[in-house]
Amino acid sequence: MRLRKKPWADAEIEASPHIVVPNPTELKGKWHQFFKNNNPIHIELGTGKGQFITGMAQAHPHINYIGMELQTSVIAMALKKAKEVKAPNLCLLNQNALQLPDFFEPEELERIYVNFSDPWPKTRHAKRRLTHQVFLDIYLELLGEGNEIHMKTDNEGLFEFSLNSFSDFGCRLKNITLNLHESDMEGNIMTEYEEKFSSQGMKIYRCEAVLPAQK
Amino acid sequence: MRLRKKPWADAEIEASPHIVVPNPTELKGKWHQFFKNNNPIHIELGTGKGQFITGMAQAHPHINYIGMELQTSVIAMALKKAKEVKAPNLCLLNQNALQLPDFFEPEELERIYVNFSDPWPKTRHAKRRLTHQVFLDIYLELLGEGNEIHMKTDNEGLFEFSLNSFSDFGCRLKNITLNLHESDMEGNIMTEYEEKFSSQGMKIYRCEAVLPAQK
Repeated sequence: MRLRKKPWADAEIEASPHIVVPNPTELKGKWHQFFKNNNPIHIELGTGKGQFITGMAQAHPHINYIGMELQTSVIAMALKKAKEVKAPNLCLLNQNALQLPDFFEPEELERIYVNFSDPWPKTRHAKRRLTHQVFLDIYLELLGEGNEIHMKTDNEGLFEFSLNSFSDFGCRLKNITLNLHESDMEGNIMTEYEEKFSSQGMKIYRCEAVLPAQK
Repeated sequence: MRLRKKPWADAEIEASPHIVVPNPTELKGKWHQFFKNNNPIHIELGTGKGQFITGMAQAHPHINYIGMELQTSVIAMALKKAKEVKAPNLCLLNQNALQLPDFFEPEELERIYVNFSDPWPKTRHAKRRLTHQVFLDIYLELLGEGNEIHMKTDNEGLFEFSLNSFSDFGCRLKNITLNLHESDMEGNIMTEYEEKFSSQGMKIYRCEAVLPAQK
């Protein structure tokens, strides 16, 4: 997602270090102290404008949520929403998913959400897809066996790639749906992107992948 | 697939017992003798008019193929094709898939093809879907661990059901495609149904499921 530069974004972010954590490397291994509880920590990669992660934080107060988004002007919008909901179980990171191991100890996280991530359709860019084995190796280290990656996308090619990537990695797949908004899934919280495109009749794909034992 | 009754069908079938095997229970455990070799045996459930199974038999002479089709008037069409190709590695069964254990010993088969099977869309009919656990239990007994079920369908609901059913059963999924005719799969042999509907732009789904260890 690309938005025009928002000059106010940097200032807003700097003024809210309790929401957009400025120094995540210092919190490595200490996230439960940060949240002041031992509840599970779930992270969304590419949190966009934050509708999903703020909705989840409100719906599940006994889970801690971290929304990660690289683009400063986009995360500034998520910050606005986070301020409105005032959820103590929610924070944001203005960082890149490749850096996850710098921020979290092995098995410090319990679930990863990958919602409408960049499909990188060209084969030579496959390694950039957030469900490529490059990332699954990282997720396995940070989540451990039996924990789950939940993905949603409107991109058929990315979904097909991801199902195969998860399976080849040894994940067990669960709750696969090829048309989420015609399915019987309860409690789905939509991203902004999902709301817009599903209202135009586009199909949304979803699955859950259970991580295998360490390799 | 329903066709009008063909009065000539019964007579044609009875006149070709070397192709449409009339007594499969008597061949249980003896199929390699029937084919006069020890090559793997692959079976297609719901073989329809036989374009797939005759094509496969011609393309892979070192595999034995059995096409199973319940409807007499339909299998008579497959018989016509089988007579044309004169493949010694092909036979047909005018039988119901539920009876598979009457015809085959455990691990006598190596692969099952489920092509464009009836989606049975009503939930109360789910057990009739050829990828329901009821059938997977049978397939596991007849194929054994590590052997594969290959499915194709144009039905989104059946494909979604099947992916979950395979996964829940402990199968490893491989080569999942959400749009077969845009994929890079080589050597695909189309069924009559597939040829007709894919030419109209309908998407064809495909996957391979590797059977787990006996339960």
